[in-house]
Amino acid sequence: MKLVCSKANLLNGVQIVSKAVPSKTTMSILECILVDTTNGEIKLTANDMELGIETTIEGQIVEKGIIALDAKIFLEIVRKLPDSDITIETDASFKTVITCEKAKFTIIGKSGEDFSYLPAVERDDSIVISQFTLKELVRQTIFSISDNDNNKLMTGELFDINGDEFKIVSLDGHRISIRKIQMKNSYAPKKVVVPGKTLNEVSKILPGDADSDVTISFTEKHIVFEFDKTVVVSRLIEGEYFKIDQMLSSDYETKVKVNKKEFLSCIDRATLLVKEGDKKPIIVNITDNGMELKINSALGSMNEEIDIQKQGKDLMIGFNPKFLIDALRVIDDEEVDLYMVNPKAPCFIKNVEESYIYLILPVNFTTVA
Amino acid sequence: MKLVCSKANLLNGVQIVSKAVPSKTTMSILECILVDTTNGEIKLTANDMELGIETTIEGQIVEKGIIALDAKIFLEIVRKLPDSDITIETDASFKTVITCEKAKFTIIGKSGEDFSYLPAVERDDSIVISQFTLKELVRQTIFSISDNDNNKLMTGELFDINGDEFKIVSLDGHRISIRKIQMKNSYAPKKVVVPGKTLNEVSKILPGDADSDVTISFTEKHIVFEFDKTVVVSRLIEGEYFKIDQMLSSDYETKVKVNKKEFLSCIDRATLLVKEGDKKPIIVNITDNGMELKINSALGSMNEEIDIQKQGKDLMIGFNPKFLIDALRVIDDEEVDLYMVNPKAPCFIKNVEESYIYLILPVNFTTVA
Repeated sequence: MKLVCSKANLLNGVQIVSKAVPSKTTMSILECILVDTTNGEIKLTANDMELGIETTIEGQIVEKGIIALDAKIFLEIVRKLPDSDITIETDASFKTVITCEKAKFTIIGKSGEDFSYLPAVERDDSIVISQFTLKELVRQTIFSISDNDNNKLMTGELFDINGDEFKIVSLDGHRISIRKIQMKNSYAPKKVVVPGKTLNEVSKILPGDADSDVTISFTEKHIVFEFDKTVVVSRLIEGEYFKIDQMLSSDYETKVKVNKKEFLSCIDRATLLVKEGDKKPIIVNITDNGMELKINSALGSMNEEIDIQKQGKDLMIGFNPKFLIDALRVIDDEEVDLYMVNPKAPCFIKNVEESYIYLILPVNFTTVA
Repeated sequence: MKLVCSKANLLNGVQIVSKAVPSKTTMSILECILVDTTNGEIKLTANDMELGIETTIEGQIVEKGIIALDAKIFLEIVRKLPDSDITIETDASFKTVITCEKAKFTIIGKSGEDFSYLPAVERDDSIVISQFTLKELVRQTIFSISDNDNNKLMTGELFDINGDEFKIVSLDGHRISIRKIQMKNSYAPKKVVVPGKTLNEVSKILPGDADSDVTISFTEKHIVFEFDKTVVVSRLIEGEYFKIDQMLSSDYETKVKVNKKEFLSCIDRATLLVKEGDKKPIIVNITDNGMELKINSALGSMNEEIDIQKQGKDLMIGFNPKFLIDALRVIDDEEVDLYMVNPKAPCFIKNVEESYIYLILPVNFTTVA
């Protein structure tokens, strides 16, 4: 095989497909990126058997062929080469020579024949949304998936399509994050659970233009993301997702409107007294005079008053500060509304249109006299 | 004690003295910053018994007093407070209340009486150089001190003052770095060895203005750096420094002039094939046609030609690539001159005025057929 392409194009392509290279594996072929020019285009592929990414890059094919190259070394070489044309040439013994200006690297590749191609997947059941929207939806919900494999469904996010409404949901047993958008077109109802890892990687490689779209296709076992010259194929998580509708409620006894930035900085300050792993709740005391935040730890204590607009009853309630921070960070509104019932019932942070709903379970606390 | 000062002033002061707080110590008082207002100014001090830093900040003293506060917590609190006036108030039981706007932190301090003050040091034997110059000299030499305590003198840098010449030297057994500047005034000859840690910390807190000076004073056992409102006192390393003059020579058999950036990028590329800890030399082959760089490792091989201006004999010589990179990175010249004798003798990278001299010992290598 022999090809010539610009460093910029090659680097971009290698960086994209590298996201599907597993960090640990016993199958060394999976640590490779496949470079395949047999079909008249320069196609790069990586595949960890759960997630596969394939992209094509511009360039000139001098001799058709196929080679698998160690992803880490290949990426490092391309990254450090001068910003000029790169030539990749392989021989029958998989010796691969990468040249750029006067620099010449020689590495040993592997047979492309051993590489596992992406599964062939039908792409007739699809939706289209903007790259920007998908990236935002993932960012605004991904933090509340579980990283614990005990319940596989919690490690993914629900994609819930109904007409022109696209809802994305994540939950970890302590909180639920829901984001909802309106799409340009209407589609048949569909619910699938997409692995969190897939969404993280797709987010990273999506350029995220508001003017460019991503096409998402579904089959029984797979989801496919197509954008620009890249195709991402991932397995879905099998099983029925949690029934979240019955966990949501619009009843409340206390409603608080607070400046988001002020609330967030105050929680941020309070948590500096909490050491990593130490589960100290932040205590929120809501009265007609305002909202007082308090935290006590072995290192000291902190309290601060925040101005609020309050409706309903006084309430003292405790939270894991991280859960509040995670939700507040991804809300762009200047002011947020909190809806609470009592110290044992979930708190909802949501807007009127319910384009976002963050449910957070409170934690028990003991008040220090 | 009670004082009021701006967050910006307090943060700056706490950040400066924090550099002398040891990361590990069995004496918990050393983990503290002393806040002392007994002399009518707000003075912050930290001291790890080798290195002590003291700085004064603007502010209003409401009630004189003294308190020692855990440096880590204190810094975190100040950093996260709003950008406004901060009040610190202590009581007889060392309870310390830090308030800023509506935020209130309560932590328990320690008695200031237990704190070890900086040693009183005479400051009559001094030199003056610009902050910028000192910072540059340290940056350009500090990388070749040894981090191995076996030879204490190698963990420091020689300050060699002679008339209006100030020379700074570091060496680790494989290389020597020398930087020389001309001072405005002349001083009596003096040679001291300053701990590398002290120089690292001083560099970090020096604002580095070319227009502001730093005064450096010497006693038999201590060095004192004074700049702005900060005083840094450090022990010196005792003993006689290595006689470096006899290691320097101006004889050479091969002289090479090379573009620094090109040379550096080429070595940088070559080293990506070398895994951390793997001691592969880079082989430099100098002929009339140019300079060829080669490296061979388990991961593959790389070679590249660089244009040079050559004088003298052809030469093939091997280097630890890191040593070349370290020296080239801190040389600002566009072109550098390398002086070599043979594959066993040191290579010198120096300019004509010898304001910098980097000596690097070559390493043995086996050429692959």
